[in-house]
Amino acid sequence: MRLLPIFTALLMTMTSALSADAPIRHVVSFKFKKEASPAEVQKIEEAFAALKGKIPQIASLEWGTNISGENLDKGFTHMWASTFADAAALKVYLDHPDHQAFVKLLKPSLEDAFVFDFQPRK
Amino acid sequence: MRLLPIFTALLMTMTSALSADAPIRHVVSFKFKKEASPAEVQKIEEAFAALKGKIPQIASLEWGTNISGENLDKGFTHMWASTFADAAALKVYLDHPDHQAFVKLLKPSLEDAFVFDFQPRK
Repeated sequence: MRLLPIFTALLMTMTSALSADAPIRHVVSFKFKKEASPAEVQKIEEAFAALKGKIPQIASLEWGTNISGENLDKGFTHMWASTFADAAALKVYLDHPDHQAFVKLLKPSLEDAFVFDFQPRK
Repeated sequence: MRLLPIFTALLMTMTSALSADAPIRHVVSFKFKKEASPAEVQKIEEAFAALKGKIPQIASLEWGTNISGENLDKGFTHMWASTFADAAALKVYLDHPDHQAFVKLLKPSLEDAFVFDFQPRK
C-alpha cells in the first residue's frame, strides 16, 4: 500500500511524457554474421531502403554505416533511423507484409540487432 | 602485394561513400547504474539538452527514453540524436570543455554507452 502513491506518481509522469499521437523515432542498428557476404549485406541495405516506397507509414528513413572513432559501437556496423506519425503507424509498419518479407531476407545474415524507439524532446 | 588491389578498391569505395563535408548523425544511447537516482538521471538529461545552447556546432539535438516493445534495446533506456555539419564540427563538440564537463557529470551514473555516427543516405 505504501508503494501505491509512488506507483501512481510514476504512472502520471509516464502518461504525461508519452503522447499517443506524437511522432516516434524508430532507430535500428545491425551487425552481420562474418559469413554474410558483401553482396548479401548490400541486398539488405537496398531492401531496407526500398521499404520507404512500399509502406506509406514510413514518414522518413535514412541510414548509414558507422564512422564513429569513439569505439563504443559494440560491433554494430549499420543504422537506420525512421520516423512514424504515432505508435499506430509504427505498428502498421512492423506488421506489414513487406516489412515481414524484409525481416525474412535479413535473418540469415543477422548477427545482432539493437532497436530503440523514442518520442523526440528538445 | 596481391592484397593491394583489393585494399585500393576498398579505399576508393570508402572515399566515394564518405564525403568530408557531409552532415553527420551522432547517436548516443545510455543505460544508467542501478544506484543512479532519478534525480541524478534527470540532471544528466537536462545537462545534455543544455549543451545545445552552449556548443554552436550542434546543428540539432533531440532525445527520448525507450518505448520500443520489441525487446531489442539491450537495457539501454535513453537516446540522444544530434547532427553536425561535418566531421570537423563533431570533433570540436567532442573536445569542447562543456562536453567534457558533461562527460564528467555523467560518468559516475553511467552503466554503459553505445555511440554510432553515420552520414545519412536515403
